[in-house]
Amino acid sequence: MSTVDPRLSINQGTIKRADLAEALRATVANGVQSIGLWREPVQEVGLTTAAKMLADSGLRFSTHCRSGFFTMPEGPARRSSIDDNLVAIEEAATLAAAGAAGSFPVLVLVAGGLPEGSRDVIGARERVRDAIGELAPAAKAAGVQLAIEPLHPMFASDRCVVSTLGQSLDIAADFDPEVVGVTVDTFHIWWDPDVLTSIERAGREGRIATYQVCDWKTPLPANVLNSRHYPGDGVIDFASLTRAVEATGYDRDIEVEIFNEEIWAKDTDTIVRETAASFGSAVTPHLRAAVAS
Amino acid sequence: MSTVDPRLSINQGTIKRADLAEALRATVANGVQSIGLWREPVQEVGLTTAAKMLADSGLRFSTHCRSGFFTMPEGPARRSSIDDNLVAIEEAATLAAAGAAGSFPVLVLVAGGLPEGSRDVIGARERVRDAIGELAPAAKAAGVQLAIEPLHPMFASDRCVVSTLGQSLDIAADFDPEVVGVTVDTFHIWWDPDVLTSIERAGREGRIATYQVCDWKTPLPANVLNSRHYPGDGVIDFASLTRAVEATGYDRDIEVEIFNEEIWAKDTDTIVRETAASFGSAVTPHLRAAVAS
Repeated sequence: MSTVDPRLSINQGTIKRADLAEALRATVANGVQSIGLWREPVQEVGLTTAAKMLADSGLRFSTHCRSGFFTMPEGPARRSSIDDNLVAIEEAATLAAAGAAGSFPVLVLVAGGLPEGSRDVIGARERVRDAIGELAPAAKAAGVQLAIEPLHPMFASDRCVVSTLGQSLDIAADFDPEVVGVTVDTFHIWWDPDVLTSIERAGREGRIATYQVCDWKTPLPANVLNSRHYPGDGVIDFASLTRAVEATGYDRDIEVEIFNEEIWAKDTDTIVRETAASFGSAVTPHLRAAVAS
Repeated sequence: MSTVDPRLSINQGTIKRADLAEALRATVANGVQSIGLWREPVQEVGLTTAAKMLADSGLRFSTHCRSGFFTMPEGPARRSSIDDNLVAIEEAATLAAAGAAGSFPVLVLVAGGLPEGSRDVIGARERVRDAIGELAPAAKAAGVQLAIEPLHPMFASDRCVVSTLGQSLDIAADFDPEVVGVTVDTFHIWWDPDVLTSIERAGREGRIATYQVCDWKTPLPANVLNSRHYPGDGVIDFASLTRAVEATGYDRDIEVEIFNEEIWAKDTDTIVRETAASFGSAVTPHLRAAVAS
């Protein structure tokens, strides 16, 4: 086996077909030291069991993916979403405590799109801020860092009304950085003319909760949600983005999170191996350790 | 026939299957006063003939679509692109002179994507600025206003490295506003958290060369290029965007530009009628004339 970058974390979305046991097994078996988990496979076995399985694996835990989806107006659906986010906070805290040293209790938040029939994107964004205000005390009490994730603008209407890193930082600005940070995901923000200055700002404000990498390539597939590729297979400049993140002092694990039907169709070990290889060639050369040497 | 808004212009892209003669006929026949033309159908009949046909129609000419595509490095392909843009400038001037009073010689510019094999989006953007610098003297001499169009970030890699209105204005800032303006197209910029302030800035700086409207709806079709809808059929808030544009003093025609396979499949008269009706209900109520009354 070739050397695997010690900072690589496999986001479980990359190996979506694997259940928790298989995901942990394949990650360990292929020399990766860290994993980002998804809520559904964790809930499938139950939180206590999941935490024990994670502890037994010896892996670090890098993020919990994902909650959020709180753009709807006040009412039962919004209360249900807030309640579910409180559960997610507890999950993130429990899993991070079960992970190996260097685990972080990061909970990725995807805001949600426009409520059905609404054209009020400004109002929806205000409700994101309100929801985070409701969740922040619980996150603080649990020691969890919420990580607002800007999603590519092609998802602005149906998935996430937060579209740029700068906008995530503006929302986060009302809160303690240890409680509310941001997700820096290359796929979503590479196109932004302000991306490098926003990364610098995110670092200066202490907000980078997680750095996630995957690549952008066209033509987009019919379902644009699943258009993420291995680093190096598309057009994203991982040199400039990775160096900008590293320059802020970010020293946590770096997740590869890919949604791609063709990759998901492969067996789990193959995906983990290919992920590690792509990370090694596209991202590792731009990390502090490599740049300094 | 119901009343058609006098400021509506049919962009020829909306009736893509029609040749120039049919496009002009259907536009006039359905009570629309203005048209935005595309280069290919104009070149099909030749510029002189096209100008005569336009003059005979009695329609105003609102924009010429489109040129640009100059992100490649120096070399024969770049020279060829610059030469073609110079031809487009002459076309725009000739057509605007042939149109009815109130025509404007606006040439829409789409920057182009990343050159094949390149990951240098910053360099590509610099080459956009350089190209406009080369074209500006010819545009000024011809009395043509170049209209830099930011395209939705989902096109950033393969079609247009200029993704936001603010970025278009930053590029335009080096030039006289009468020579270099911007295209404000709702489809491309509705998601931008800075959209209203950028429209206000564009107006203050005298840069709004054309306002184009169509709607955004998900799920996106397999070819995301053709995901544009009649105003009112999607989630874009035409009230706030149209009022913001009107508040700048913009008083030119407003184009409906739609790329949509299902709409293109209809007969030309139906498309023009449906376009006028959708404009009347989604856009007209937010124009100065209606707001003041």
